[in-house]
Amino acid sequence: MEIEIATIGGYEEVGRQMTAVRAGDDIVVFDMGLNLSKVLIHDDIQTERMHSLDLIDMDAIPDDRVMSDIDGTVRAIVPTHGHLDHIGAISKLAHRYDAPIVATPFTLELVREEIDDEGKFQVDNDLVEMDAGETMSIGDETDLEFVNVTHSTIDAINPVLHTPEGAVVYGLDKRMDHTPVIGDPIDMDRFREIGREGVLCYIEDCTNANKKGRTPSEAVARSELRDLMQSLENYEGGIVATTFASHIARVVSLVEFAEEIGRQPVLLGRSMEKYSGTAERIGAVEFPDDLGMYGHRQSVDRTFERIMNEGKENFLPVVTGHQGEPRAMLTRMGRGETPYELENGDKVIFSAGIIPEPTNEGQRYQSETLLGMQGARIYDDVHVSGHLSREGHYEMLDALQPEHLIPAHQDMAGFSGYVDLATSQGYELDEDLHVTSNGNTIQLV
Amino acid sequence: MEIEIATIGGYEEVGRQMTAVRAGDDIVVFDMGLNLSKVLIHDDIQTERMHSLDLIDMDAIPDDRVMSDIDGTVRAIVPTHGHLDHIGAISKLAHRYDAPIVATPFTLELVREEIDDEGKFQVDNDLVEMDAGETMSIGDETDLEFVNVTHSTIDAINPVLHTPEGAVVYGLDKRMDHTPVIGDPIDMDRFREIGREGVLCYIEDCTNANKKGRTPSEAVARSELRDLMQSLENYEGGIVATTFASHIARVVSLVEFAEEIGRQPVLLGRSMEKYSGTAERIGAVEFPDDLGMYGHRQSVDRTFERIMNEGKENFLPVVTGHQGEPRAMLTRMGRGETPYELENGDKVIFSAGIIPEPTNEGQRYQSETLLGMQGARIYDDVHVSGHLSREGHYEMLDALQPEHLIPAHQDMAGFSGYVDLATSQGYELDEDLHVTSNGNTIQLV
Amino acid sequence: MEIEIATIGGYEEVGRQMTAVRAGDDIVVFDMGLNLSKVLIHDDIQTERMHSLDLIDMDAIPDDRVMSDIDGTVRAIVPTHGHLDHIGAISKLAHRYDAPIVATPFTLELVREEIDDEGKFQVDNDLVEMDAGETMSIGDETDLEFVNVTHSTIDAINPVLHTPEGAVVYGLDKRMDHTPVIGDPIDMDRFREIGREGVLCYIEDCTNANKKGRTPSEAVARSELRDLMQSLENYEGGIVATTFASHIARVVSLVEFAEEIGRQPVLLGRSMEKYSGTAERIGAVEFPDDLGMYGHRQSVDRTFERIMNEGKENFLPVVTGHQGEPRAMLTRMGRGETPYELENGDKVIFSAGIIPEPTNEGQRYQSETLLGMQGARIYDDVHVSGHLSREGHYEMLDALQPEHLIPAHQDMAGFSGYVDLATSQGYELDEDLHVTSNGNTIQLV
Amino acid sequence: MEIEIATIGGYEEVGRQMTAVRAGDDIVVFDMGLNLSKVLIHDDIQTERMHSLDLIDMDAIPDDRVMSDIDGTVRAIVPTHGHLDHIGAISKLAHRYDAPIVATPFTLELVREEIDDEGKFQVDNDLVEMDAGETMSIGDETDLEFVNVTHSTIDAINPVLHTPEGAVVYGLDKRMDHTPVIGDPIDMDRFREIGREGVLCYIEDCTNANKKGRTPSEAVARSELRDLMQSLENYEGGIVATTFASHIARVVSLVEFAEEIGRQPVLLGRSMEKYSGTAERIGAVEFPDDLGMYGHRQSVDRTFERIMNEGKENFLPVVTGHQGEPRAMLTRMGRGETPYELENGDKVIFSAGIIPEPTNEGQRYQSETLLGMQGARIYDDVHVSGHLSREGHYEMLDALQPEHLIPAHQDMAGFSGYVDLATSQGYELDEDLHVTSNGNTIQLV
Repeated sequence: MEIEIATIGGYEEVGRQMTAVRAGDDIVVFDMGLNLSKVLIHDDIQTERMHSLDLIDMDAIPDDRVMSDIDGTVRAIVPTHGHLDHIGAISKLAHRYDAPIVATPFTLELVREEIDDEGKFQVDNDLVEMDAGETMSIGDETDLEFVNVTHSTIDAINPVLHTPEGAVVYGLDKRMDHTPVIGDPIDMDRFREIGREGVLCYIEDCTNANKKGRTPSEAVARSELRDLMQSLENYEGGIVATTFASHIARVVSLVEFAEEIGRQPVLLGRSMEKYSGTAERIGAVEFPDDLGMYGHRQSVDRTFERIMNEGKENFLPVVTGHQGEPRAMLTRMGRGETPYELENGDKVIFSAGIIPEPTNEGQRYQSETLLGMQGARIYDDVHVSGHLSREGHYEMLDALQPEHLIPAHQDMAGFSGYVDLATSQGYELDEDLHVTSNGNTIQLV
Repeated sequence: MEIEIATIGGYEEVGRQMTAVRAGDDIVVFDMGLNLSKVLIHDDIQTERMHSLDLIDMDAIPDDRVMSDIDGTVRAIVPTHGHLDHIGAISKLAHRYDAPIVATPFTLELVREEIDDEGKFQVDNDLVEMDAGETMSIGDETDLEFVNVTHSTIDAINPVLHTPEGAVVYGLDKRMDHTPVIGDPIDMDRFREIGREGVLCYIEDCTNANKKGRTPSEAVARSELRDLMQSLENYEGGIVATTFASHIARVVSLVEFAEEIGRQPVLLGRSMEKYSGTAERIGAVEFPDDLGMYGHRQSVDRTFERIMNEGKENFLPVVTGHQGEPRAMLTRMGRGETPYELENGDKVIFSAGIIPEPTNEGQRYQSETLLGMQGARIYDDVHVSGHLSREGHYEMLDALQPEHLIPAHQDMAGFSGYVDLATSQGYELDEDLHVTSNGNTIQLV
Repeated sequence: MEIEIATIGGYEEVGRQMTAVRAGDDIVVFDMGLNLSKVLIHDDIQTERMHSLDLIDMDAIPDDRVMSDIDGTVRAIVPTHGHLDHIGAISKLAHRYDAPIVATPFTLELVREEIDDEGKFQVDNDLVEMDAGETMSIGDETDLEFVNVTHSTIDAINPVLHTPEGAVVYGLDKRMDHTPVIGDPIDMDRFREIGREGVLCYIEDCTNANKKGRTPSEAVARSELRDLMQSLENYEGGIVATTFASHIARVVSLVEFAEEIGRQPVLLGRSMEKYSGTAERIGAVEFPDDLGMYGHRQSVDRTFERIMNEGKENFLPVVTGHQGEPRAMLTRMGRGETPYELENGDKVIFSAGIIPEPTNEGQRYQSETLLGMQGARIYDDVHVSGHLSREGHYEMLDALQPEHLIPAHQDMAGFSGYVDLATSQGYELDEDLHVTSNGNTIQLV
Repeated sequence: MEIEIATIGGYEEVGRQMTAVRAGDDIVVFDMGLNLSKVLIHDDIQTERMHSLDLIDMDAIPDDRVMSDIDGTVRAIVPTHGHLDHIGAISKLAHRYDAPIVATPFTLELVREEIDDEGKFQVDNDLVEMDAGETMSIGDETDLEFVNVTHSTIDAINPVLHTPEGAVVYGLDKRMDHTPVIGDPIDMDRFREIGREGVLCYIEDCTNANKKGRTPSEAVARSELRDLMQSLENYEGGIVATTFASHIARVVSLVEFAEEIGRQPVLLGRSMEKYSGTAERIGAVEFPDDLGMYGHRQSVDRTFERIMNEGKENFLPVVTGHQGEPRAMLTRMGRGETPYELENGDKVIFSAGIIPEPTNEGQRYQSETLLGMQGARIYDDVHVSGHLSREGHYEMLDALQPEHLIPAHQDMAGFSGYVDLATSQGYELDEDLHVTSNGNTIQLV
């Protein structure tokens, strides 16, 4: 059976991920993502009303026109988790394929919301739920399995396409977490088993491939966050926290530790409401009954007013703005544009790293400067990454022993650490180690 | 009563700390340290046989000749903890003063060993043990108190000189740790109480004053170390760890986690034996009965031979060499100079940061390169610092509310973050914020 | 005679410089500057209509209320050169003092323009022109001399107040340039002479005090720029350059090399027109007769249209936007908002460094990204700084041999390299080396 | 005709360059280099007596065993210039091939010296001189041409193999210099001509491919050096300079400017004597008749004694040690191990950058610290690189328009900027852009 990989998007950048795997006549598409920074660099762009071709021209979504060169039928579109760089182009591209979208519950719900917000295209693909550990048939001889992995959002999986020629493992995005706070640990037993069965190809998330060592567990971030928040237990003023809205485990920890130190947590900002609300609605997480979540500006401001009236010392607002985004809640607080009044000594916790790009660094600096001008004390980088570092990659290679390797989810500089690792383990460029770019196809069998 | 501070050493560098406080006719000296890098930059120097004046000329130990300008009698020499930059000059300078050396048990024992090793001077000062929480009388109206603090070694205290004009708090070295793995948490209650009683002057450890946020607890380093070591539980080859030999809490965690993953820990290298042996001998820590500690090269090599015979997979050697020091055990292992044979995939854990100096970075790079050439996988920086960062400094100011501030334990660039913090809190240069250098005196009252 | 220095602004930042020197009853004020980044961090602020007290509250202009503590009469306000951080607050503060503004011709003309643009205050101070090398009497025993220096704009001087107690040399801003392209070399002979006569106090520009080595001459930047532009001689598409508009020598080099490679230079953007126009009007520089300078958007766009019609290969537009400022001309070109169409291979020369602040780095990155998206090739950092580095400071100390030193034009971290240098030369903190902050007074005699 | 490229060494590192090109039955080998850092990481290794296989095992010299897989006869061994990473393995590997070594005069002379120093192998290959601009026949249909290029040593060329299928251009090492101080400018006219004739493959020097902009001409480094040295004209103490010994143009500038400021230059240190002596002997450069060059320690020390006797202010020693090598002359001067006595204020000029590796940074830091402890003032990085930056690569692509591209002279991280550039110009990985590693063969025709 012929096995072919099309590297459609996310092979020259982090963002707009899309990969197609053809096994005989059957094709499965993994991820359809959006590169948000290619949108934001332009002023005043509303993607909801834009045509896919314009977004392709902007390098914002994958250029899937290469799909016409591949001889087969798309049987499934499989987003691995709910981050925008993996699902953000579904509402622009999926309608071109007569195939269901198959995903875990949380991811699928986020896809549904994307489709609902879409203003240009009608997306009618079936939405099929499949849990980690489950398998579905794709063609006569090909099966799709979801292996549970751990990442900076919940319900993440690595899809595995089992073919007669061996398994194709799509390894985006994960870290190796044995104590992930929410959900099950990464299923290394299953990966090792698949490795013993035979892996034809492994496509790897190289985000942190240039980082030494091993990404710690979410339990370590939780331990650092608890240590910090308990050290603030006696502080009698305002404490504000921010993190990735989709990072449900972190939000849960913030909520829990807020209560431990006698403060009422409240989630504020549009995406805070969206992701946490969705997670709760599908039962992925159980928040305290009285946990407030507010997204609309008016209800946010009303909540801030209530906090000011009842005493800042009784609350922990968890807000958007971890990257210093100019319009996010925390930046507005720094500008004094909300009813929440920061005072000398008030604490702001960034439970997030800066996504490494000068634009983010500039915006975050500006946000911290504004907060500091109001007297806020800044605790930053209370965080661990959601991506494997070098030794995690080493362990995955050891577990899977793949015949072929395809680094993904980075540009060439980002791939370099992975190529160094792979060649030190005996892989050879142009033989079984395929460093490629967007829009190529690799014939494996 | 006149109160005067002499900033003798460690006000232009990290290293060779020494500060004298005169209250009326009574003087207490805090720390007498060695700047090791000023020794190591010269080839082949043996400090044991050197005269203090030569070491002063090399900027290796404090230039205490300024003491002759201070009118009073030295009543006590008080090292705050057992690191060389705080006790390493005692054997060269203490004999000039007719005063006892007062310290906590672990620190005092390390001082005793320094004195025993000294080959040039006869040091006969009384060695007086005092525990954290205790107080001794220094003069008619002046008392010396030890407040318990937390640092990267055990038994650290901050000495406080209580004078009729208020307390002088000598704040070197500490982080704010409420869950320090070994020993008691930092005694913030007592600091706040002293703050309410009135603090005339606070001398602060500025090592990390330019770092944002808050230094996490040792419990966080422990959580990260445990996460790492448990992730290696199934590895069937060699695992080696290194850390600061004097960091007893970290050594204890390494020993404990070794056993958790079914490996016998063994401590190797001269300073590993020295510090852990001392800690155990004075009862500060209880290691497993069968824990081996070997310092002499022959016994180390015999142990390595035994490990190779019985199987590397059954052991965790904890060795010296965390900074890549050319003659330390781990570097020798990298050079293949020991019987321990590293193989592809073997793990080396650096539970230590790099002390930021290009020399260290070069040596560490070389050590990691040598280890990597033998196939070792490197896990670095599994560590948290032992020093307060900016928000810890903020909390100390808030607790103590001192009248005067003296930044210490850095050079001018290192002080800058602390000066920014202090001025933002209302202190003024040349008024109550004394940025000074080695060899000055500051008249407070 | 009593000599006192008031460090009013620019002692905790780069920006809003202001220093007063009192000699007996006579006071001279050096510089009244604006910290632009304190304005820009707020959205939509128009400083022209703002009251000085509001600008003081924003830390945007010097807080000159400390002047009321100084017993004497202001005899002159002396801006050293025409940069905004030295003259930008004159229109807000000078009217409070009954004293002339004394400056070199180019600086004075820029002050005049600032005053003309001011919308809130009526500034009626006399404007008195004085050239480098000249002296005026300030009081019975005190004289003000202008010593020629070299900086990144023209007509810069260091004012020297000659008092019976020795000279007070105000050393902001300069580099040591013996071949400055425009104007005379730095007058080191006169500095050495003043040094021999006796210097009571030297106030130093510490902008680059942490940089090793020596800042090269403008002739070196010119050599690098010529090398670059001649290497582009055969390019048949568009070439665009940007630099600091006030950096007249650099603009002159750009104009000259444009002509050398057969292109017509044209200066575009409001501040390009302003500074070059002023320099030409007062005769400080002679541009080619037909050199176009356009500031208003309409005339700029008309010029771009003409360039597109006549062929980009015949022109060198020199435009604003070297820091990636969002509204500057080059950024607009990157966004495709001007009639100038960039094509694959077109060249953009940044003859400027990035002023080191994350905001600038983010904006510059964004500007370069936008230009790159249109195919432009970027040549950055074709530049040398206008400020002394460490060895220049060393040479100034050697020439002046001042009794007292006051580091300025930086924050504490920025001072640190200068303090290290000064202490290595025998100065002592709190004795003759005065590290201070905004709003202090230092009694020298 | 079959054209095949074997990427033997220098495709995973900077160092041990070796590439073979087969055109039909004829093979030409370009470069046979040594990776010195792979030697130095081991203690006490003498390469002169080592066998090639041991050096291959250490990754110190190219593993040329892949040559046995290539069907053809080696017709020439062609080192491009005299740096060790290009000629340092000739004495270990060339004797295996029955082929002449063809090089420009300076390079050939350095090869001859390497062969003379070799203690293990007898190297009897013919040494054939060929100048830039000349061509020799390699086989019936294949010619070898030397195109003049500019680099940080003299007499560098890019060899071009003209085959019936087009030219193979071996582009190591160069910068694009139109005013190179010594020798002719880079022959871009010829490159453009070859481009028009048709280039099958271009192998590019990627050393600086991640650096933006364009590497300036040696004339710019010369301009900066002259500016610096003239600024020191009045200094009446010692001035010492160091640079790459093989960088003849820089040495010439140092010699010339020494005389301009009234000092007698003298070249000291083994490699200073070697490279400058060789250059003078073959007539590549004309030094002043009385220029002293001394390599043996005794004659160096005698020279230092003479300098001390006659007055340091009359000399400019140009010495080895620009990377802070522990045994080089400048480091010995820092340790006070030579008769030359540094005093407060003496100047040390590093006319060299630090080769970016932590080991070098550590050693250089140590050397500068030692020099500083003796009072020396340091001027560092008075230098421009000898390698193309990104825009130079762009220009070469534009000139040659090659069908195939092979990045070389870096590791994968170092290639990344070049891959980004090449893909932006329409090249595709695995199609016509061959990112490869050591030991591979690429079949082009």
